[in-house]
Amino acid sequence: MSVLPTAPIEITAFDWVPDFARGFVRDLRPRWACEEAGLDYRERLIPVLERPGWYYSEQPFGQVPALKDGDLRLFESGAILLYLGEKDDRLLPKAGQTRADTVCWLFAALSSIEPYTLEVLLLKFSIEEEWAKLRRPSLAAFVESRLERLADALGGKDYLTGRFSVADIAMATVLREAQHTGLLSMPSSLCDYVERCLARPAFTRALAAQLAAFGRTEKERGKS
Amino acid sequence: MSVLPTAPIEITAFDWVPDFARGFVRDLRPRWACEEAGLDYRERLIPVLERPGWYYSEQPFGQVPALKDGDLRLFESGAILLYLGEKDDRLLPKAGQTRADTVCWLFAALSSIEPYTLEVLLLKFSIEEEWAKLRRPSLAAFVESRLERLADALGGKDYLTGRFSVADIAMATVLREAQHTGLLSMPSSLCDYVERCLARPAFTRALAAQLAAFGRTEKERGKS
Repeated sequence: MSVLPTAPIEITAFDWVPDFARGFVRDLRPRWACEEAGLDYRERLIPVLERPGWYYSEQPFGQVPALKDGDLRLFESGAILLYLGEKDDRLLPKAGQTRADTVCWLFAALSSIEPYTLEVLLLKFSIEEEWAKLRRPSLAAFVESRLERLADALGGKDYLTGRFSVADIAMATVLREAQHTGLLSMPSSLCDYVERCLARPAFTRALAAQLAAFGRTEKERGKS
Repeated sequence: MSVLPTAPIEITAFDWVPDFARGFVRDLRPRWACEEAGLDYRERLIPVLERPGWYYSEQPFGQVPALKDGDLRLFESGAILLYLGEKDDRLLPKAGQTRADTVCWLFAALSSIEPYTLEVLLLKFSIEEEWAKLRRPSLAAFVESRLERLADALGGKDYLTGRFSVADIAMATVLREAQHTGLLSMPSSLCDYVERCLARPAFTRALAAQLAAFGRTEKERGKS
């Protein structure tokens, strides 16, 4: 559960991003899953501003993360979380209703919550534009009502399916980004949920590893 | 591969939707997968306008589809497609790179394409509003550039992974909705791809079954 150049699992991440994005790039998700499962991984860092042409054959949209495990290649953080979850049934049970719930909540995080929180994030970056000012109230109202439904579904549970899983890695990273926009009001039970997830030592290590990679790039650039 | 009241698989769909939504509601996806895999299913129809309170305990956001298979419950069309795919390796291979590619493209359809095509759909419904008029050019440019990347990745293949899979059920239904907005320009190879997917007999049967359910509801209402 550390970054190890000889590990069979390779996570592709960016070698540098602007300050506001640090700690929020999506390679955080597979890093976190590896840390939870006790899996070593190596990093492959690519430039965010001039993404290499060959990378699009591995990730059709040029995004990160991508993952290799030996000869096997994966893209999309949801597919990667599902794949890593299969390696550790603490992260994804092998069968039964809890497995089904985990997969459902993984998709829910990425298909029913993240699309709208990303819209809020884009709106934040465009807030000086007239469309963003006009759109903000209806978008915030929609997202907040969806977050209330999510809080209802979480109920008094510590995690989405009762026990921590890859679904929580997806959902907590999505909600953390939403909080970071500062444009949404979130039910207190969801704030507690995010805090509970982020308090896990595996998250702390994953975050430190992402930030360390940016630090190395800057140090190298400083030398050249 | 027909609607059968005694089938163990149950798909929840709406009993009625306005004309513009007919044939586009997402229960089309599991219906299509069942038809491809030769699985019978029964329907449970719920009202779209006054969704029953109990339904939120099965589908946290009150959306369709939801699926039951015996005692097992699932929500989110991505999770349901993955589950149904496991029943037929023509729809989801059991192992190897083609399985990985199928899962990656399933997530890509629902996490990297659909969020933006849904944004275009909402914009279409809001086109008289000032924010929608102002937002349209930048949104269309973004989505169209993403569709070009998708067309590059599809290349000369008939289907996303070379052979038809649950990923194509997700992607073709997403792109069909995008075409239907009339607000996007789509590369001709993607138009051909959608046409190829929709020409499958299983799609025709799934579409007919969704429309038939709306027809039955209207007939019953006409009687009462």
